[in-house]
Amino acid sequence: MSPATGHVLGVDSGGSGIRVALRPVPGNGPDLTWSSSVPVAVGERGVDARGLLGQVLPAARSLLARAGAQRCEAVCVGAAGMVSLGADLRAVLPSALREGLGVRRLALASDAVTAYAGALGQRPGAVVAAGTGLIAVGTDLTAEGGWRRADGWGHLLGDCGSGAWIGRAGLEAAMRAYDGRAGGSPALLERLREVFGPPPELPAALYPRADRPAVLASFAPEVSRCAPGDPVAADILRRAARHIAEAAAAVCPAPGPGRDATPAATGRQAGLADPADGVYGTGGACDVAVTGGLLRMGTPLLAPLHEELQLQLPHARPVTAAGEPLDGALCMAEALLTDSLLLPADPPMLHIVC
Amino acid sequence: MSPATGHVLGVDSGGSGIRVALRPVPGNGPDLTWSSSVPVAVGERGVDARGLLGQVLPAARSLLARAGAQRCEAVCVGAAGMVSLGADLRAVLPSALREGLGVRRLALASDAVTAYAGALGQRPGAVVAAGTGLIAVGTDLTAEGGWRRADGWGHLLGDCGSGAWIGRAGLEAAMRAYDGRAGGSPALLERLREVFGPPPELPAALYPRADRPAVLASFAPEVSRCAPGDPVAADILRRAARHIAEAAAAVCPAPGPGRDATPAATGRQAGLADPADGVYGTGGACDVAVTGGLLRMGTPLLAPLHEELQLQLPHARPVTAAGEPLDGALCMAEALLTDSLLLPADPPMLHIVC
Repeated sequence: MSPATGHVLGVDSGGSGIRVALRPVPGNGPDLTWSSSVPVAVGERGVDARGLLGQVLPAARSLLARAGAQRCEAVCVGAAGMVSLGADLRAVLPSALREGLGVRRLALASDAVTAYAGALGQRPGAVVAAGTGLIAVGTDLTAEGGWRRADGWGHLLGDCGSGAWIGRAGLEAAMRAYDGRAGGSPALLERLREVFGPPPELPAALYPRADRPAVLASFAPEVSRCAPGDPVAADILRRAARHIAEAAAAVCPAPGPGRDATPAATGRQAGLADPADGVYGTGGACDVAVTGGLLRMGTPLLAPLHEELQLQLPHARPVTAAGEPLDGALCMAEALLTDSLLLPADPPMLHIVC
Repeated sequence: MSPATGHVLGVDSGGSGIRVALRPVPGNGPDLTWSSSVPVAVGERGVDARGLLGQVLPAARSLLARAGAQRCEAVCVGAAGMVSLGADLRAVLPSALREGLGVRRLALASDAVTAYAGALGQRPGAVVAAGTGLIAVGTDLTAEGGWRRADGWGHLLGDCGSGAWIGRAGLEAAMRAYDGRAGGSPALLERLREVFGPPPELPAALYPRADRPAVLASFAPEVSRCAPGDPVAADILRRAARHIAEAAAAVCPAPGPGRDATPAATGRQAGLADPADGVYGTGGACDVAVTGGLLRMGTPLLAPLHEELQLQLPHARPVTAAGEPLDGALCMAEALLTDSLLLPADPPMLHIVC
């Protein structure tokens, strides 16, 4: 067990804004948190590091002041776009956070990795982060295995089973009913009329918008609402559940020996789950969790999802996500501080700077 | 039979440019044609009438001069966007063509209607116009029945079975193989790498583009190429064929009495098919044709398409399209002149101005 103590910072930067939390280590008090609904801009150099720092540095200083602390010992930044648009973050954040907050240890992670850590902590397994889009990540905690990733390719190339996928399928079924084509749903057509107005006017309203995936996803709850009495809507959710399970199955570690989690490395002090509970490689099943806003679709999606997970991942154990990406970022920052990080470094998914 | 004689003009305005043809009536000589690869702009008022006239008027005058003629008696303009973006065309074209070319009779049609007339002439039936997008139109030639339309809702809401639909499904299957998800096609993944480069870089290359449907459709031929040896690609084309037939079935007139086509109204003088050959309502089957660039996909699509048409439209007779939308516009202009137009007026699909 590491004797390191001090304050750690977790950052969750996503499409709907930034959240920051400060935690004393060791400590049992509540984390101090700050949030902003202003997302970090994406420019020519990718996710804009100065824009992120412009919000995170003042927020962190304010939280430190409230905690009566001088510096952050360790920070984990989880950011949407880290993998493909994170070059500026990787170039700017290390020195800026060292100089600005006294940070000694830093992890830069995909928001999918912080979602994983928030859901499962440092146990091996698979996590599907599903909202407007959908991405799955998994790890067996070995350095060789690193991180496996599936989907997250956006609403035209994938994000199969996501909110945008479900909403788009629902709107197609509504337009099929309008046309009198096979596969149409009169119930979804009625919902389309209620939500968007006359069906022939929907294309002109949808295509010019920049936030098309969000517009599509806004119809997903209507599919869930219709599903109990509408076989077309129910079939859309069944297919979504199948796609979600397919993404989980593609990243879930296969049964077999993985890296053993030692009690010293995963113990209570890091705020993580009991390592004896479902550690992969000790004969038990690995864990699979689905997290994110898609869970608000409720039973019409979750019931077939549970069935599909059991069908496609018979060796895995479906579990409820323990927390959110911000919780994951905090856990990872704490593990950095206490030398107990088990999640494998695997840039650009997870880049341990120091 | 009408004694009317003179020159008629057909116009086909689409996403890839404008084509214009002049035909003497009666006459057996070749039509005079002109084409431009500059499409008419779509502005705040929809398809820009002045932009269309700026190309069509000089072209028509040049063709008239080559024919030694003074005026166009009748014109049919078929234009993409006529239904939902045609207000400016309907407001400006009638007087401008009367003043500019001496036009006495004018039809403004959806390009789907001119595609129909090009494929089937004035016979009842159904036509699917399929390229990057897909739309089906059908008519039983009765005024009450008018025009039926299915799909044409664009790549997010429909266009099921189109080039964009096939290409998108192919790219999804390639990314599934990249991820190790179910439903992946290693063959399509290899084609994706060949055409677009490294798979993880495709989202950043695709999403910022304005011509996303065309980019998706550009991959459709690869699906056709892989289909003979790849079950995933073959299944995509089978599903596309099913969707195309579903659109045709939704607009195809049901068996039963329709408007009889009299020999006087459909005879040789209008350049149309022999009315004894498959006229609906006289006991024969109605005709169904697929037209457009999607036919270049070849046998891997056309074989299942033939099967699906027979399965879903057992009362219809699949026929080869006789011609293209420009042929359809010419036929309709000629029928206008000779008072033999059988295709039903049904604004905004087909607007007979005078």
